[in-house]
Amino acid sequence: MATLFRSSLAGLALMALAVSAPAKEALNGVSSFMLDNGMQVVVIPDHRAPVVTHMVWYKVGSADEPPGKSGIAHFFEHLMFKATKNHPAGEFDRKVAEIGGDGNAFTSDDYTAYIQTVSPEALPTMMAYESDRMRNLVLTDDVIGTERDVILEERASRVDNDPGALLAEEVDATLYQNHPYRIPIIGWKQEIEQLNRTDAVAFYDRYYAPNNAILVVAGDTTAERVKELASQTYGRVARGPDIAARQRPQEPEQNTSRTVTLTDARVSVPSFSKRWIVPSYRTAAPGEAEALDLLSEILGGGTRSRLYQRLIVEEGTASSAGAFYQGTMYDETAFGVYGAPQGADGLATVEKAIDAEIARIVKDGVSADELERAKTRFRRSVIFARDNSTGMANLYGSSLATGSTLKDIEEWPQRIEAVTPEQVQAVATKYLVPGKSVTGYLLPEAEVAQ
Amino acid sequence: MATLFRSSLAGLALMALAVSAPAKEALNGVSSFMLDNGMQVVVIPDHRAPVVTHMVWYKVGSADEPPGKSGIAHFFEHLMFKATKNHPAGEFDRKVAEIGGDGNAFTSDDYTAYIQTVSPEALPTMMAYESDRMRNLVLTDDVIGTERDVILEERASRVDNDPGALLAEEVDATLYQNHPYRIPIIGWKQEIEQLNRTDAVAFYDRYYAPNNAILVVAGDTTAERVKELASQTYGRVARGPDIAARQRPQEPEQNTSRTVTLTDARVSVPSFSKRWIVPSYRTAAPGEAEALDLLSEILGGGTRSRLYQRLIVEEGTASSAGAFYQGTMYDETAFGVYGAPQGADGLATVEKAIDAEIARIVKDGVSADELERAKTRFRRSVIFARDNSTGMANLYGSSLATGSTLKDIEEWPQRIEAVTPEQVQAVATKYLVPGKSVTGYLLPEAEVAQ
Repeated sequence: MATLFRSSLAGLALMALAVSAPAKEALNGVSSFMLDNGMQVVVIPDHRAPVVTHMVWYKVGSADEPPGKSGIAHFFEHLMFKATKNHPAGEFDRKVAEIGGDGNAFTSDDYTAYIQTVSPEALPTMMAYESDRMRNLVLTDDVIGTERDVILEERASRVDNDPGALLAEEVDATLYQNHPYRIPIIGWKQEIEQLNRTDAVAFYDRYYAPNNAILVVAGDTTAERVKELASQTYGRVARGPDIAARQRPQEPEQNTSRTVTLTDARVSVPSFSKRWIVPSYRTAAPGEAEALDLLSEILGGGTRSRLYQRLIVEEGTASSAGAFYQGTMYDETAFGVYGAPQGADGLATVEKAIDAEIARIVKDGVSADELERAKTRFRRSVIFARDNSTGMANLYGSSLATGSTLKDIEEWPQRIEAVTPEQVQAVATKYLVPGKSVTGYLLPEAEVAQ
Repeated sequence: MATLFRSSLAGLALMALAVSAPAKEALNGVSSFMLDNGMQVVVIPDHRAPVVTHMVWYKVGSADEPPGKSGIAHFFEHLMFKATKNHPAGEFDRKVAEIGGDGNAFTSDDYTAYIQTVSPEALPTMMAYESDRMRNLVLTDDVIGTERDVILEERASRVDNDPGALLAEEVDATLYQNHPYRIPIIGWKQEIEQLNRTDAVAFYDRYYAPNNAILVVAGDTTAERVKELASQTYGRVARGPDIAARQRPQEPEQNTSRTVTLTDARVSVPSFSKRWIVPSYRTAAPGEAEALDLLSEILGGGTRSRLYQRLIVEEGTASSAGAFYQGTMYDETAFGVYGAPQGADGLATVEKAIDAEIARIVKDGVSADELERAKTRFRRSVIFARDNSTGMANLYGSSLATGSTLKDIEEWPQRIEAVTPEQVQAVATKYLVPGKSVTGYLLPEAEVAQ
């Protein structure tokens, strides 16, 4: 339980999935309906193996937290494993383990999700437990205090002990000048320390309600069966207060290039990343998000990409190099490149080569051929994604929770097919502007030149 | 009307005054009392000239704005010059002009203030008008819409047309990773565009109330007279809802050094500034704010300072160089240095020389002699400040509105006297850490090296 999904390199595994939307045929089996209390239900049947993935997605993440209360969304993810009026703390977890299932949960900037992968017979039990904790948590000062210490310890070990994580926090805080994506999902230490029962209850009452949740069930079940079970469980939870559409402070126009440098004795090989603010799938003009996805793939998506081929295979100057686009976000998001040299020297060379590769795309565009190869890799990833129920549940849940519709998911492959080389060049030119970037440097400690 | 007072170089004139607290003797005549509705009144008699300065300070500034509503505090400063139930728009202004007075208003991160300097006979009229607009503004959609366009135009001319102002905004947005001092006082353009009547009324009702205001009257009047007039005017305004102590999101620990670069064809001579987060007078441990004030004076306060003497007089490499400390702020604030070369080259030389001067203070401290000279300059500024009623009104108002007490103002000269060379070295060592700074560069356009 309690995984953070961040808009950072660590989140790329999910991002790769999230861009791999299913082909139209796959949708034949997918159905969606609403419970009377406003809860959306999506069923993705797949009978190849006797297993189901059961996920509940709450449309609330760290970017929805009140000012000064950073970390409350992730804190709440922890609290969901505590006692309810009907079950002692840990019972749900033990149940999942007993039946040989897998349980997990994660918090992102835009959503918080709870997942169990179990055999189909256990689905009614999962739904009973999950719908119970949507409303019946017992939030005492004692529970809150104990869990706060756990989270402070988690922050200490995951962030404060990791120079790369510390740098990532300050890069985000620099990249986003106004939007709450600036704030770390786990929360700033001094604010986590102050989180209390009042904050937790307010958050629970506002956001943990069927009309702010999406149920996704993928695997060996049917829409009829899920509908029947959902009405008996989630359907009995009262609708919560109406929640207005998310309105977070948006980014101003950016006019500067910025750098963020962390020098630390624990770093052995230097590395850098460079980011720009770009539209997400929800905020983009038609075709731009798809073009950014393909740009990221052509430039730095794996071993066939330009950066990998040039810097690692041909020149041998880099030990890593790549690109990423975090398109599955509710608001404007980041496009980035990153690299590290072979050994302790040569970071400037790697950065320069990556900048040059971007400049080349801006100047000369991409070839029809390499665009076609990138599309083929996306096509394959779609086929691959369909092979995995949990991946499909993740894809539908994360897309719907960040403002996409089922139709958006369905039509994604066609929209990708329609992208032209000119569109890829256009988004590179429009968004990857050197004077509007944020570059983070992680450096080994040298003699201080002050 | 409508001046922005910013935590930036432009605000230094006020800051210089704000650190020049009056000697104990000056306080003999200063008195303070509360009206029944919670409005604080401070009277600073000075009978040398037949003039009074009448100021009302609201303890609300841009750092108190709701998320996404940046600019509303400054917007409201504009709206205060519109029609009330009792007077048409512009009448108050015309009245002040007719009697040969001066009127003004300004908004900072922490407060909004309205000021008139007039002959003593006009004081009752000023109080009548000022107390009227504390509650009786007529806020129509029409008024709001028209003034919003005025402010957008003000932003366009003051910020968007000025590369230095654009850079300053992004430097602040980088320096403050969590605190709302990150956000420009005038507001982000896209948020100003959305400000509406609902926002304005909510802001007015919450913050424009006697129990959130300080009246400061300085000049040719007496406490008795002010008390009498204040009860007849402000005293009749109903107390507003209770306002909790300000609790803005605070800064996390910073671990990186950051740069912000703006390259623009309109820039001819390059320049830079470097900032660190430091405590303000309200948040500092005893003696630290005073030591930071003296450090700023020794390092870069005018022509006697180290930076001026070395870079401009001796080496002749810089055209400007100095230091500043924005101590009169409610929350943690900035200490900074800045410089520009002689001509278009040599920015790196200037920055290096300034860094070296800081490193020298960290290593060797300051001499008892130069500390004493800095204190003497502060002593003189205290005497100078007492000579100016408006300056005194500003000093008391800004200090009280950022959490200082009358006692703090009174005892400031003694606290400055008590600072030792070791304390100055200690704050330089503790706060001016190269790995935790933000440096802004304003550069002429060169051939793009991309």
